[in-house]
Amino acid sequence: MPRYKAVISYDGTNYAGFQVQNNAHTIQAEIENTLRRINGGKSITIHPSGRTDSGVHAKGQVIHFDYPHERDGEKFRFALDTQTPADICFQSVEQVDDEFHARYLAKEKIYHYHVDLGQSPDPFKRLYSAHYRYQPDLEIMRQAAKYIEGEHDFSVFCATGSAVQDKTRTVHEVTIEKVSETELVFIFRGNGFLYKMVRMLVGTLLKIGNGQLPVDAIEKALLNQDKKMTGPTAHPEGLFLMNVSYK
Amino acid sequence: MPRYKAVISYDGTNYAGFQVQNNAHTIQAEIENTLRRINGGKSITIHPSGRTDSGVHAKGQVIHFDYPHERDGEKFRFALDTQTPADICFQSVEQVDDEFHARYLAKEKIYHYHVDLGQSPDPFKRLYSAHYRYQPDLEIMRQAAKYIEGEHDFSVFCATGSAVQDKTRTVHEVTIEKVSETELVFIFRGNGFLYKMVRMLVGTLLKIGNGQLPVDAIEKALLNQDKKMTGPTAHPEGLFLMNVSYK
Repeated sequence: MPRYKAVISYDGTNYAGFQVQNNAHTIQAEIENTLRRINGGKSITIHPSGRTDSGVHAKGQVIHFDYPHERDGEKFRFALDTQTPADICFQSVEQVDDEFHARYLAKEKIYHYHVDLGQSPDPFKRLYSAHYRYQPDLEIMRQAAKYIEGEHDFSVFCATGSAVQDKTRTVHEVTIEKVSETELVFIFRGNGFLYKMVRMLVGTLLKIGNGQLPVDAIEKALLNQDKKMTGPTAHPEGLFLMNVSYK
Repeated sequence: MPRYKAVISYDGTNYAGFQVQNNAHTIQAEIENTLRRINGGKSITIHPSGRTDSGVHAKGQVIHFDYPHERDGEKFRFALDTQTPADICFQSVEQVDDEFHARYLAKEKIYHYHVDLGQSPDPFKRLYSAHYRYQPDLEIMRQAAKYIEGEHDFSVFCATGSAVQDKTRTVHEVTIEKVSETELVFIFRGNGFLYKMVRMLVGTLLKIGNGQLPVDAIEKALLNQDKKMTGPTAHPEGLFLMNVSYK
């Protein structure tokens, strides 16, 4: 059966995350419902590069699925884009080798996390960034972020509820950019991220930037798996899965 | 009684417009409910520079109201900002002369209208721009927009349902900017705008840019009050009231 790869974006605001759950409104359920309609009522399962949580957004999520007909990529994209809700967008669809797997073959993922530092929360950013009242020290956060880079056992930055056994991941780069007077973006590039790992790292970096944890807190947290050296999990609405690349 | 002027922004997505209506969720009702709570249960009426329609946004709407106590501007702003919903923001509050009137003394208003020209509608712009599938001719629209500038009777660009008698307005400037590969912004500066006037002008400019109306359609529409020379009313979600200035 032909296998297809699709790059999709979605506004996660109105969804209980990516993965199908009983009675919940999810991205996967919307897309699978659309595929079933297009496929004459027969079910099709989609496989993402990884799940995203409730309220988390994507601008470059990748999925694959098997569909029993040969379809022109652009026509298939257009059909899926127009038949899914307005908060889900199909950017591209292409037929791929049937060895392709959106999760197992992912080489690198990029996440962005947006923080609104304005005096009052901006109504137009409230669904797409997390608001912080204080001004964190950018240079201190950049120093602290260096301890994240490299291969580490990130167990202390993995929320409970994960079934993953091996919690070693390699983070290629963490950068923090001030994109305007009132907006910060944290950029994470790595070979994979554990459940809520990016949000726990952002919460820890902000607490370091606010002087409530030492600059080497992340080094200590990783060395000793010390929860006391970590901050709270940052809110979901600031997080975007931007890109997934493949071998 | 002390009079206060406030600059507010709001995401109009979830509101049936600005003005109080029976059983409808409106910006005015939310703000007046908040003021009544702060004022020990006694009603306070707010007066905007002008109404905005259902789904229309504001980044610089101005209101005034009379409140029976002297309040420090920043403390009052903070109280109102935190007690109104997250999609309404109080940017500033200051006590003003009791001659001040948000509507009668407005000298100039600036509106922006955002158009998403992407291949598929961007999920993150869907609430804040109107999507157009075709690529309108920017230069032709800029020529056509020149006919809007100046003092004109804009009756043909006023939706029915307006109680306004004098439909003469002066538009100081119309500019059209391509802010990215896939986004246009129409910018209108004028001494006032009639009911749905900006959206009718944008709908007409896009139809001219698409070759379905001649470049001088707006001149003809204004000269002869000719409805056939106008386009459809553009969707509300692309429109932002950006600024109101006073004498």
